[in-house]
Amino acid sequence: MVNELIAAGFEFVDHVAIAVKQGELDAQVEKYKSLGFTELHREEVHGKHLVREVLMQIGAGPNLIQLLEPLSPESPVAKQIEKSGGRGGFAHLAFRVKDIQHAYAYMKEKGFNLTQEPGPGSRGTMIFFVHPKDFSYLIEVVQEGQPHV
Amino acid sequence: MVNELIAAGFEFVDHVAIAVKQGELDAQVEKYKSLGFTELHREEVHGKHLVREVLMQIGAGPNLIQLLEPLSPESPVAKQIEKSGGRGGFAHLAFRVKDIQHAYAYMKEKGFNLTQEPGPGSRGTMIFFVHPKDFSYLIEVVQEGQPHV
Repeated sequence: MVNELIAAGFEFVDHVAIAVKQGELDAQVEKYKSLGFTELHREEVHGKHLVREVLMQIGAGPNLIQLLEPLSPESPVAKQIEKSGGRGGFAHLAFRVKDIQHAYAYMKEKGFNLTQEPGPGSRGTMIFFVHPKDFSYLIEVVQEGQPHV
Repeated sequence: MVNELIAAGFEFVDHVAIAVKQGELDAQVEKYKSLGFTELHREEVHGKHLVREVLMQIGAGPNLIQLLEPLSPESPVAKQIEKSGGRGGFAHLAFRVKDIQHAYAYMKEKGFNLTQEPGPGSRGTMIFFVHPKDFSYLIEVVQEGQPHV
């Protein structure tokens, strides 16, 4: 299995995450819908994230826009909005992998700055993050469903 | 033809554009390569853009990372880097459409803030932009090759 993987095994853009100011989520969802996007999923993510998340599908493919509205001023997304002059905007870019343990081990060995070991994301995904010091923006690596065993 | 199109006709993420500080392009390209990305295209774009552009392919799919290094302090990308505290990072998100004239007419009629009529982009593409006031970040709409006639 590992032999089939090319390097870190990034396959495609899983989602582009966009921070949305509190109170503006529904209006933003409607704008995407008017362009033909479909709302696939909506979830409140508690723990350290503290966001309302909506996934909007582009066309019929796997690429999603993930809208993130802070549920509290303590949310990292609220802090990001504050830092960028009170505006929403780009939050992170997530790449899909088949095998997150492989991606993690590969990137760690290559010396990338990984901020956590693979852990649960929303919708039963497994995720980890690459610190912006590597690519000048925050990257998420995401595997669907449960980890391979 | 037009009847087959859903709303604006966005199909997938054509590319995510990332601003790279002058002098750091080659090091960034190597980092993406070490993850398994392939360099597909390299071009100097003059006119008003004034950037060195490198397209990196993720996996075998159509999603690309577009690295943009300013060729001059007059480049809009140089100004963006300056505005964001001297760091590179997210520049714009580009969605692919089959018919850019349809996308333009549809979005104009819906009242979106389009900054220009469809015009030539790099690699023979046709592009237009949606002002950040609509989605809080800059969106590019892009059609491959020449416009449909």
